[in-house]
Amino acid sequence: MTLRKSWLSSANVDGTDFPLNNLPYGVFSPPGKAPRCGVAIGDQVLDVATLEEQGILVTGDTPICRRPSWNTLMNRGPVTWLRFRDQLTTLMSEGAAARSDVEAHLYPLSSVLLQLPFTVSEYTDFYAGRHHATNVGTMFRGAENALPPNWLHMPIGYNGRASSVVVSGTPIRRPWGQVKGADQPQPAFMPSRRFDLELELGAIVGTPSQGPVSVDEADAMIFGYVLLNDWSARDIQAWEYQPLGPFQAKATATTISPWIVTAAALEEFRVHTPERQVPLLPYLADTGPMLYDLNLSVTLAPSGKAATTITATNYREMYYSAAQQLAHHSSSGCPMRTGDLLGSGTISGADKHSRGSLLELSWGGKEPLTLDSGETRSFLEDGDTLTLHGYAQGPGYRIGFGECSGTVVPALANPFMR
Amino acid sequence: MTLRKSWLSSANVDGTDFPLNNLPYGVFSPPGKAPRCGVAIGDQVLDVATLEEQGILVTGDTPICRRPSWNTLMNRGPVTWLRFRDQLTTLMSEGAAARSDVEAHLYPLSSVLLQLPFTVSEYTDFYAGRHHATNVGTMFRGAENALPPNWLHMPIGYNGRASSVVVSGTPIRRPWGQVKGADQPQPAFMPSRRFDLELELGAIVGTPSQGPVSVDEADAMIFGYVLLNDWSARDIQAWEYQPLGPFQAKATATTISPWIVTAAALEEFRVHTPERQVPLLPYLADTGPMLYDLNLSVTLAPSGKAATTITATNYREMYYSAAQQLAHHSSSGCPMRTGDLLGSGTISGADKHSRGSLLELSWGGKEPLTLDSGETRSFLEDGDTLTLHGYAQGPGYRIGFGECSGTVVPALANPFMR
Repeated sequence: MTLRKSWLSSANVDGTDFPLNNLPYGVFSPPGKAPRCGVAIGDQVLDVATLEEQGILVTGDTPICRRPSWNTLMNRGPVTWLRFRDQLTTLMSEGAAARSDVEAHLYPLSSVLLQLPFTVSEYTDFYAGRHHATNVGTMFRGAENALPPNWLHMPIGYNGRASSVVVSGTPIRRPWGQVKGADQPQPAFMPSRRFDLELELGAIVGTPSQGPVSVDEADAMIFGYVLLNDWSARDIQAWEYQPLGPFQAKATATTISPWIVTAAALEEFRVHTPERQVPLLPYLADTGPMLYDLNLSVTLAPSGKAATTITATNYREMYYSAAQQLAHHSSSGCPMRTGDLLGSGTISGADKHSRGSLLELSWGGKEPLTLDSGETRSFLEDGDTLTLHGYAQGPGYRIGFGECSGTVVPALANPFMR
Repeated sequence: MTLRKSWLSSANVDGTDFPLNNLPYGVFSPPGKAPRCGVAIGDQVLDVATLEEQGILVTGDTPICRRPSWNTLMNRGPVTWLRFRDQLTTLMSEGAAARSDVEAHLYPLSSVLLQLPFTVSEYTDFYAGRHHATNVGTMFRGAENALPPNWLHMPIGYNGRASSVVVSGTPIRRPWGQVKGADQPQPAFMPSRRFDLELELGAIVGTPSQGPVSVDEADAMIFGYVLLNDWSARDIQAWEYQPLGPFQAKATATTISPWIVTAAALEEFRVHTPERQVPLLPYLADTGPMLYDLNLSVTLAPSGKAATTITATNYREMYYSAAQQLAHHSSSGCPMRTGDLLGSGTISGADKHSRGSLLELSWGGKEPLTLDSGETRSFLEDGDTLTLHGYAQGPGYRIGFGECSGTVVPALANPFMR
């Protein structure tokens, strides 16, 4: 596919995240007004709530867009998703008859407030990047036990906290937690000293399910994707995670980007999963290309200083697709719901500069990273701003995710004084 | 306290779960009508939605009760909880002036449909019973590593699936899952052969929080309690749980009893946690009696046969209270919300007949249990009905939970054929 031309010139600019080919979905508040559904295009956001009310966008009897979440559209299923997107494409295309009706409902992106684009029903985080699992496993359990015996047979995951999911731009408070160093006789309750990021992609369940779903069914249930930073307190994690997995180490916050990039917009960037070391069981077997070729990177900017790119990798590095994760997630009969968010797991590449966490980049703090400013980092410091970027590169355009950003603010002096 | 006498004679009957002292909250549908909030008393359920509309119950401008959940009341906080309960007590007390206004809004419990009494926001399951953790740890990791090093320092827990919580009476479909025996070279996808129950108490978060809360604050946030059966597929769990904890093994279903027994009704049954082997960190330290003296038991009835009581124990066996669990849960800054459900963890006593799971009762299947019918059980069989019972015994009355029941139905022949 080539660039779809829009009558909105900023949508045709080389390098924009939001050409007409993309049309990602967010929730925004125009200056002084209530939040509603909006669609990013070029440097503008389109007020689809008002377009729907005026009958310019036709969605049926029950309004979809005059709400602070996209869950209603998501719940309607793939046919509605397609019709909705097709209408938007028509309205914004070069030469569109409706241009004059639509133009009044654009707001500069720089003028609006963005919030979470959907109501997160439940949040599950996977561990489906082989390089990441190998790196972390080597550090936590030694090279011989790096990859757990089950890892090549199923996407390992755990349930996270939906209440902790926040939109890009939300300050991230360094957590307190219970920690115990290997050389300490007793644990202590203190602010985390090994606070970290995890570069992930989040898949959003659109249509709900009851009972096990196949990989193909799962693929069709996924509405879209966001960038996701799974903030992680490594010192809390190391002490708490045996035997039932990460809990408070991952519960402080998870930041997502404000725009849902739809599966439809990413369709032409599908790629296959890597070669299988052992065959997958039939219920998880690959049935087609279900990863995407997405360039991903992270910058770290210390307070008041320029940003350094600390990693660059690609979503195609994952061993399991979101569809495989969702199929496995439903395998026990677990009901899946509109708005469930599935984190891919940390996306690390094979080489050192493509690792998706500071834990890996600094090898547990033993090899601190040097930033462009000359400062070094083993883990995050107060004031650090972390920003995830991501896009798929087409011929002459890109499908971008916008930014997924958060600044670490100091821990509370006393967590119980409010 | 003694029995509070009601003008409703069935509320004064010795042995009823629902005397006037209790007043538990549920959601019910009168025959042919929409679901609404109701309160159990004696053998009746009181239609508080209609009482509220008629101004007999005074709750303020926004109605609380004409909804299929108690979350609205729960969110209002402890002062509203108290006023609401006080009004109910007055209305139902012996000699109440309003008796004739109220009487028309009682329905026999046997005539109504019950559903989940609240909307479960998120579900967390703990592992806070020392006997259970020791038993399971011994079986999974050997006696020397039975209790993980962190166990005596914090309530270990993991996030579960809110979407899988169902009300008592819902059939429980035996799950499929990925399993691998120690002697098998490859895993297989098949119906679970080691499907189990876990006897637990569920605590319900009433008022939300942002940031860490103290144990006393946590105690004040808890609205009430339900019986909880955390159905568990042990064969799936054994293969999947390393390194990130239980996932699909616990995602098929979690059954709760239909009546929320309020913390207010249990107040006089508070008891202290057991003696501490090592002191707790100050953020978790006991500040008063926060467990309850609750008699708990489980019966198992094979299809068409009489029920056998397979275990009898007490909630006071727990090492950590729900308040301590909630304080720990919030310690990283994790936002807690109205409707969060916290499973206590399996409640096992010290002796063999007080163990809260078949895994422990049959010692991993090595010592099958003999039922009154002569049949034996290592794990659950299709057609088995499991029923949890619980009550606090006061002088001349009990605060009962009603039943928490579920029948195991056969696995789907092909999980992907629908």
